[in-house]
Amino acid sequence: MPTNALCCPLQRDQSKPRYDQLMPPHTTRIRVRYAETDQMGIVHHKNYYVWMEVARVELCKAAGFRYRDLERDHGVFLAVVESRCRYAGSARFDDDVVIETHISEASTRMVRFSYEMFVEGRAIASGETRHVFLNRELKPTRVPTEYRSLFGL
Amino acid sequence: MPTNALCCPLQRDQSKPRYDQLMPPHTTRIRVRYAETDQMGIVHHKNYYVWMEVARVELCKAAGFRYRDLERDHGVFLAVVESRCRYAGSARFDDDVVIETHISEASTRMVRFSYEMFVEGRAIASGETRHVFLNRELKPTRVPTEYRSLFGL
Amino acid sequence: MPTNALCCPLQRDQSKPRYDQLMPPHTTRIRVRYAETDQMGIVHHKNYYVWMEVARVELCKAAGFRYRDLERDHGVFLAVVESRCRYAGSARFDDDVVIETHISEASTRMVRFSYEMFVEGRAIASGETRHVFLNRELKPTRVPTEYRSLFGL
Amino acid sequence: MPTNALCCPLQRDQSKPRYDQLMPPHTTRIRVRYAETDQMGIVHHKNYYVWMEVARVELCKAAGFRYRDLERDHGVFLAVVESRCRYAGSARFDDDVVIETHISEASTRMVRFSYEMFVEGRAIASGETRHVFLNRELKPTRVPTEYRSLFGL
Repeated sequence: MPTNALCCPLQRDQSKPRYDQLMPPHTTRIRVRYAETDQMGIVHHKNYYVWMEVARVELCKAAGFRYRDLERDHGVFLAVVESRCRYAGSARFDDDVVIETHISEASTRMVRFSYEMFVEGRAIASGETRHVFLNRELKPTRVPTEYRSLFGL
Repeated sequence: MPTNALCCPLQRDQSKPRYDQLMPPHTTRIRVRYAETDQMGIVHHKNYYVWMEVARVELCKAAGFRYRDLERDHGVFLAVVESRCRYAGSARFDDDVVIETHISEASTRMVRFSYEMFVEGRAIASGETRHVFLNRELKPTRVPTEYRSLFGL
Repeated sequence: MPTNALCCPLQRDQSKPRYDQLMPPHTTRIRVRYAETDQMGIVHHKNYYVWMEVARVELCKAAGFRYRDLERDHGVFLAVVESRCRYAGSARFDDDVVIETHISEASTRMVRFSYEMFVEGRAIASGETRHVFLNRELKPTRVPTEYRSLFGL
Repeated sequence: MPTNALCCPLQRDQSKPRYDQLMPPHTTRIRVRYAETDQMGIVHHKNYYVWMEVARVELCKAAGFRYRDLERDHGVFLAVVESRCRYAGSARFDDDVVIETHISEASTRMVRFSYEMFVEGRAIASGETRHVFLNRELKPTRVPTEYRSLFGL
C-alpha cells in the first residue's frame, strides 16, 4: 500500500503545555484474533482502535495507575474526542503486533496519545487519539490532582 | 464536549482530479445496538467506523453498484488506508443515527468519503476515510472502467 | 454443513409457567455488514448473538415497550444467563437476514427467546437466549408489574 | 446470578470415537478490554465466544500446530456449527480471565471443545463449541492425516 501520507499531523494547540516525554514510550504486544479479520483476509480497520485502547490502558498501568480506578474511584472518564489511523500495511490472523505508545500532549483537561504499530519490524499503522476528562455526567472536568504527575503535569 | 477542532482537514492532493459532486450526499440511518455501547453508557468510538462502512456501502448501492460485486466479480477491494473521526457528542443505545455521506475526492486509484453523523438533528460526529483500490494480491490497482462514472471519473 | 443436531433442546423448567404464545413471532431484518465477516469469507459466528439481541429489542418494541426504558426508568436489566446457536448454513456480506423471534418461556424472574434465521428462505441458524431480570446491583429481581402482560404473564 | 442449569449437556454421538484426554486441558489468560464492556458495566456476552476462539487457537498451538497453517497450507477450516455459553457470573474491564479448554470429542470430521472461565478463582462461565472440518469450498472434509494424532485420533 502507498506510504505517502496525504495527511498533515494533528496541529498542536500552542497554548497547551507540551508533554515533555518524562514517560518513555510504552510497548504493548497484541496477538491478532481470528475474530478481528474480515473477508479481505486481513484485520478489519476498526480493530486498530481497540488495540490503541489496550495500549493506552497498559501505558497508564506502567505509569502507576489503573484506568479502572480513575473511573471507579474518581468518577473520571477519559473520553475519546478524536481518533485517527493511517494504515501502511496489514496485519493478519495470529500476527504478533507491537504497539509503541506515548503521550504526545497533556493538560489538566485533555490528553493525546500517539501509537506506532509493527509486525515483525514492519510498520503497519500509526494512530492518534485525543481525549478529554469527563465526570459521571459526561461534562468536562480536570484530571484529579494525584494523577497529574503521571501525565507529566 | 469541546467543539474546537485541533485538526486541520486532510490535505488534498492537488494533482488528483477533484470529485465534482455529481453524486449528491447519501443518507443512511442506523439504529444503535446494545452491543455497541460500552461501560461509559454511550457508543464505543470504534463503532462509528463500522457505521461509516455501512454508509459508504449504501452510497455505492444508491449510485448503482454493489460493493459485493466489485470484490466478487472484479477482484477489486476498496482498502482503507486512513480513517479518522471527531466526536462532538455521543450516541446511546436505541438512538436513530443519521449519516450523511459523500465522496469528497476520487481518482482511478483512490477514493475519499466524508461523513456527518446526527442524532435528532444534533451533530454527534464527523469522519473521513481514504481508500485505495487493491487487487486480490492486495496490490494497488485502478477502479474497473465500468465503475468510473459512478465515482464521477 | 451437516444438519443433524447433536443437541437436545434446552430443558424446560416444568415449575415455570409456559409462555402461551399470546405474542406472535416477530420478524426482524438485518443487512450483513462487511465488518461482520471474517477471513473464512462468511459472517463470524459471534455476530449471530448480536443479531439475536437486535431481534429481541425489536420484539419488545413491537410488544409495546422499549427495552431502553426498562433499564433507564426501572433500573431493571434483562441479563443473558445462557446463549446458544446452531449454524446450519452461512451468511455473507450484504445478505439480507430474516430473523423470526418469539418468547418461548417467561416468568416474573426469567425470559427465554428463540430465534430462527434465514437468508433467501434458506435456514442459516437457530438460537436461544435465556435471561433473568436484574436490578442495578445486578441482583435477581422480578419484572415490573406493568410489563408483565407484555411477557404473557 | 442463578447457578442452576436448565440445560442438559450436549448429547454425545455414540458412534463417534471418544477423545481420550491424551491432551490435558490448556490454560489461556485474557485481560478484559474496555471495548468488550457494555452499558450494563460488564462484558457483553458475545465476547465470551471470541475468548473461546482465542483459547482453542492457543490449545492447538500448545498441541503442536498453528491453526493458521491448517487454513493456509491445507485449505482446511474448522468451522463452528454450534456454540453455547452459560454465564454464572460476570467479567469486568481489566479483569484477568482464566480459560481452561479441552477437546471433549473428536473424529476425523468434527471436534468439540469445552471451556471453563474464571476470574480470581470464581467461575464466570462455561461454554462449548462444535466444529466440522471444511475445505476451501466450505464443504465437509476430513482432518489432514498429519494432524490426527494432535486430536487424539
